[in-house]
Amino acid sequence: MRRIKLFVIGVILIFHVNQFIQAASGYHLWLSYPEISNSELVKSYRKYIDKGIFISNNDSEMIESIKTELEQGLSGLLLVKPIYVKSIQQAGIIIALVDELPESVRQKISISSLNVNDEAFVIETIGSQIVVTASNAKGLLYGVFRLLQEFQMQTNMNNIRIVDSPKIKYRILNHWDNLNRTVERGYAGCSIWDWQRLPGYIDQRYIDYARANASIGINGTVLTNVNANAIVLTPQFLEKVAALAKVFRRYNIKVYLTARFSAPKEIGGLPNSDPLNPDVQAWWNNKVKEIYSLIPDFGGFLVKANSEGQPGPQDYGRTHADGANMLARALAPYGGIVMWRAFVYDHNVPVDRAKQAYAEFVPLDGKFDNNVIIQVKNGPIDFQPREPFHPLFGALPKTNVNIEFQITQEYLGFASHLVYLGKLFEECLQSDTYAKGKGSTVAKVVDGSLFNYSATAMAGVSNIGSSINWTGHLFGQANWYAFGKLAWNPYESSEKIAEDWIKLTITQDKQTLQRIKSIMLASREAVVNYMTPLGLHHIMGWDHHYGPAPWINTGRPDWTSVYYHKADSTGIGFDRSSKGSNAVAQYFPEVRDLFDNIESCPEKYLLWFHHVNWDYRLKSGNTLWDELCLRYQQGVDTVAWMLSEWQQLKNKIDNEQFRQVEMLLKIQLNEAVWWKDACLSYFQTFSKRPFPPQIQKPKYNLEYYKNLKFYYVPGI
Amino acid sequence: MRRIKLFVIGVILIFHVNQFIQAASGYHLWLSYPEISNSELVKSYRKYIDKGIFISNNDSEMIESIKTELEQGLSGLLLVKPIYVKSIQQAGIIIALVDELPESVRQKISISSLNVNDEAFVIETIGSQIVVTASNAKGLLYGVFRLLQEFQMQTNMNNIRIVDSPKIKYRILNHWDNLNRTVERGYAGCSIWDWQRLPGYIDQRYIDYARANASIGINGTVLTNVNANAIVLTPQFLEKVAALAKVFRRYNIKVYLTARFSAPKEIGGLPNSDPLNPDVQAWWNNKVKEIYSLIPDFGGFLVKANSEGQPGPQDYGRTHADGANMLARALAPYGGIVMWRAFVYDHNVPVDRAKQAYAEFVPLDGKFDNNVIIQVKNGPIDFQPREPFHPLFGALPKTNVNIEFQITQEYLGFASHLVYLGKLFEECLQSDTYAKGKGSTVAKVVDGSLFNYSATAMAGVSNIGSSINWTGHLFGQANWYAFGKLAWNPYESSEKIAEDWIKLTITQDKQTLQRIKSIMLASREAVVNYMTPLGLHHIMGWDHHYGPAPWINTGRPDWTSVYYHKADSTGIGFDRSSKGSNAVAQYFPEVRDLFDNIESCPEKYLLWFHHVNWDYRLKSGNTLWDELCLRYQQGVDTVAWMLSEWQQLKNKIDNEQFRQVEMLLKIQLNEAVWWKDACLSYFQTFSKRPFPPQIQKPKYNLEYYKNLKFYYVPGI
Repeated sequence: MRRIKLFVIGVILIFHVNQFIQAASGYHLWLSYPEISNSELVKSYRKYIDKGIFISNNDSEMIESIKTELEQGLSGLLLVKPIYVKSIQQAGIIIALVDELPESVRQKISISSLNVNDEAFVIETIGSQIVVTASNAKGLLYGVFRLLQEFQMQTNMNNIRIVDSPKIKYRILNHWDNLNRTVERGYAGCSIWDWQRLPGYIDQRYIDYARANASIGINGTVLTNVNANAIVLTPQFLEKVAALAKVFRRYNIKVYLTARFSAPKEIGGLPNSDPLNPDVQAWWNNKVKEIYSLIPDFGGFLVKANSEGQPGPQDYGRTHADGANMLARALAPYGGIVMWRAFVYDHNVPVDRAKQAYAEFVPLDGKFDNNVIIQVKNGPIDFQPREPFHPLFGALPKTNVNIEFQITQEYLGFASHLVYLGKLFEECLQSDTYAKGKGSTVAKVVDGSLFNYSATAMAGVSNIGSSINWTGHLFGQANWYAFGKLAWNPYESSEKIAEDWIKLTITQDKQTLQRIKSIMLASREAVVNYMTPLGLHHIMGWDHHYGPAPWINTGRPDWTSVYYHKADSTGIGFDRSSKGSNAVAQYFPEVRDLFDNIESCPEKYLLWFHHVNWDYRLKSGNTLWDELCLRYQQGVDTVAWMLSEWQQLKNKIDNEQFRQVEMLLKIQLNEAVWWKDACLSYFQTFSKRPFPPQIQKPKYNLEYYKNLKFYYVPGI
Repeated sequence: MRRIKLFVIGVILIFHVNQFIQAASGYHLWLSYPEISNSELVKSYRKYIDKGIFISNNDSEMIESIKTELEQGLSGLLLVKPIYVKSIQQAGIIIALVDELPESVRQKISISSLNVNDEAFVIETIGSQIVVTASNAKGLLYGVFRLLQEFQMQTNMNNIRIVDSPKIKYRILNHWDNLNRTVERGYAGCSIWDWQRLPGYIDQRYIDYARANASIGINGTVLTNVNANAIVLTPQFLEKVAALAKVFRRYNIKVYLTARFSAPKEIGGLPNSDPLNPDVQAWWNNKVKEIYSLIPDFGGFLVKANSEGQPGPQDYGRTHADGANMLARALAPYGGIVMWRAFVYDHNVPVDRAKQAYAEFVPLDGKFDNNVIIQVKNGPIDFQPREPFHPLFGALPKTNVNIEFQITQEYLGFASHLVYLGKLFEECLQSDTYAKGKGSTVAKVVDGSLFNYSATAMAGVSNIGSSINWTGHLFGQANWYAFGKLAWNPYESSEKIAEDWIKLTITQDKQTLQRIKSIMLASREAVVNYMTPLGLHHIMGWDHHYGPAPWINTGRPDWTSVYYHKADSTGIGFDRSSKGSNAVAQYFPEVRDLFDNIESCPEKYLLWFHHVNWDYRLKSGNTLWDELCLRYQQGVDTVAWMLSEWQQLKNKIDNEQFRQVEMLLKIQLNEAVWWKDACLSYFQTFSKRPFPPQIQKPKYNLEYYKNLKFYYVPGI
């Protein structure tokens, strides 16, 4: 319940934050700024703050945002209202552009590190002053958010030196939000964009959304679904988009839209949308001009073309490059970019869908304009609990490539399962492509260092909705947070990120924090095990993707489950080796050979690359069948352990946080058992082998699981 | 911003509510329990509270809810945690059933007033004790909410005596929420029912929803849309419904469902759903038995049958009575009820849709079972800004009748317009039907006193959604509140209700309160004037009902605008007099004659009942055309006044409340002008008369307004 406070205080103004309400709702995310109770630490911070804050005279609106944030942060953490002073000498905290610093201070600071890019900042204690400086208001904004985070994480500030800058230029959330406020693959209510009342009504949520993103370094947002709607490009809607852009601009966040490729025909009245048709080019040029007249810092377009029924340049016999460059040339004069998705597959069912993006894009390498970035999903199929990295990473040395992660848990238990995705993101980013020899990690591709890309980006498909706590699941917030932190620095450790998030969101108590962190770090391997162990993939419910359905065998083949697991009496798995679809050939030789050989192939990818005999012996000494069963059981057991660990936290954390997550872990445990029971019952019809003794018997027979029907599953 | 506090306090536990966060979100509605700053008053309340609270030993779960509420209320209002004592004598506050009271106390209390019904309560100061008593835990629940409200409204409690009981038995919200979480005619985001995660995940919102409703006396909720879906009656969904029922039960709220009439055929596998088919009857009997096995206090069914395409008994040549009674008989053994909607109109377009419900239901009077209530909309068309009362009120002496109001503003500006509906509800309830002579008000029909109905109810179509503040517009909360208060007591003054709501939600400052109240009280007449003055109705946008569209003349005639306004070169209005459709004949003679005669017909209903010549002189001396113009202008002017009044409140109320409503009033003003300009431009094509000089000229020509297109308007 409410936190109890004892005060014996005289003259100082007190702002007391009711932590019950904050925590209960989850609305304030990692920005709840709860009061710091360590009085020594408070004293050490107040030493700086009570002397007053000098704040930059730069006229950027971001300076206003900084002030707002200081007010919220300091009144929450330290119960003080910031006092601004005009004299830099007198101030205890200096928040100023490098140019504004007195020479004496400037000399003591690592200024050169600010030259990396215009979002860099330095926080440094110089004598009795804490200096936050940057070459640009953007850097100051990030610096102040970082300063407040350090306060909140109770860092000793007496001798601090933080030099930081983002390694990736465009750090972008992708909202798959439709104009009717449904969210494709959204599990946290409806879209937060209230189009009907825009532009006149600016929901406080828009502002807090911007604050949250800025605080973790996200600097762009694609407002609309990649399955795009041309209506958003009409004047009526552009006015609404402009109103959002105005809010976000104050937080260094640019707005992007998805461009429906057929818009010239659909809303422009042209006979076609052929990218080589001068009328079509003129239409886009004019449309872009119109957009920039309303939104001078518009970011650009995200495009899904010739994929899953979306229109695209191939409708006119043109290439992806023709399509992307047409848009890029319209945007270039204004500094806008095109993010062109590589997730393509068309009406012709391929032998191996995993190979398609590579096959289409590698021949086009070097044909894209400089302000085009090819947006590649982390893996070659579609956001499965585990996939090997996408072979396009490393394969496009002359084309900007960015990575698309999915933060919303389309295939990972929706907003009901606790799965810390930091581990998944990290696993992919640290994968070695060997594109330029050992150490050519995906992170190095994405941050541009490997090939000297002219533009770098990281995109995350948002898990945000109208739920009061934004993400439906408290731990969904951690995935949003982790995405932001890894987009800023793809080399950051996911464990450190988890730790920081817990400190900012739940507790600073070391033992409790440790317990929560263990749960988080175990959670991703758990979901892999109870859903798709050993490289299995794409065996979930048809269309809604809810629950297990490995038996799906009708409809478009590459939308079925049997297409992917290929279980039969001899074994299970998709043979993508050189003897099979040869998808392994899309990787560089070191990786190719590793994956191609069943003995060297990491077991976590075994059934991704190989069709394996049921009696094949794994490194554990178990047969494949036994190991498969044990992994499913292990997944379930881990969730049971997560629940029992969580239950130790009662009365150690906010009661509402405790209660919410406990309920969800119980759902997760039920669903983990369901996955195990349904999948093993089904696969047993092929293996014809008994379950090892450690396995809990399925509760129902296979027919029961096959007959389950679900209605109104969200996110479709 | 945050409220500033000074404390010099020693030993007492302090819970300090951060009012910034509460008010900003609007989540806490009228239950935010802000600290009382009047120290004299605090002292006078503490006198009772510090002695301790005796609380009933009754084992109802509602006693737990009472404790929760006392804790929240007292810690917020008075910064104290309630201390419970075992001795009634010692306690400062006694919350006990009548049976638990010592004889000495009981003798001093107006016990007999508790006999009215089992939800009655008494709050009375006896010596140095405040006694809250009732014959039943329900009464105690309402009594404690009332006690806390009196504290919050800063009532002097030293000599209090409140004797209260609801005048209507079933006080019910109707949610038009679909299972996919869209809300028909919902403008506050999506449905708060997260079906996917039920029954396992109990959102805190469900609990707070129940608290809010209980605090204003609402004791039932229909979870699903009247355009019903049989899926909610399947076991999978009934389990979810049961989980909600369990939450609501603690707050004396029963759950109801909409019953799709064709369910036996659709999900039962029967060849038909004929209510006289014994198999169909058996199916419903079994279904109801199944429901009660899961939800022992299930409330019953709400049914929309043979209306707007919904299935019903007439599909099989049966009557509404046949259909309703079949369901009623299934429910009767368990105490459940059927609310059968009178809003019927079928595929045959009538000459006058206003007459249809009366024509269908009056012949059936007396044919419905005792546990059936016919649910009649307040007016004969469909929730227009103003309608005369429905002629069925008073016309069914032998059939239970309840009233359905619409709280969601389908035809009144969605969640963008400030329209206080207390005035609309009150106008209808106080209308005199003359069914049993003068004084036979609609309120007397609805509370059962006129005809001694065996069951009474009031239904309100909810405006609740996933918006953090529940209703999208702050003042939408007032409409939810007013509905609850009028369902409890249909004779209550809407002005008093507005005043209480302002005190509980915005401010206790008298001058500020007065200003806000003036805005609220003026708002309903404003919307009538800028949308549909002088009895006009149903001239809004096709389908989505957004904005003016009096020109709609294609499609089903009684869904067009021209069907209702019948403007031509001679005049405007629907002739429902004895010379026209004779709808007036459905009213009792006194009312009929009043409406029938153009001279006596109240001008607010003029064009509802008469086709009136453009040059007809109104009581103002103006011609109809001039008056019509002036009313539209007056509507706009009132909104402009509301905005300028509101702007006086800056820094006098919470800044976030101020900012939100200011933005919305600006939208409302724009849209009021749009209504005026579009309607007058259009009607002028018939009247061929100039605008009076006071009228602001329309900004655009008629074609502009006719060509406006809207996409993704919510609520469809």
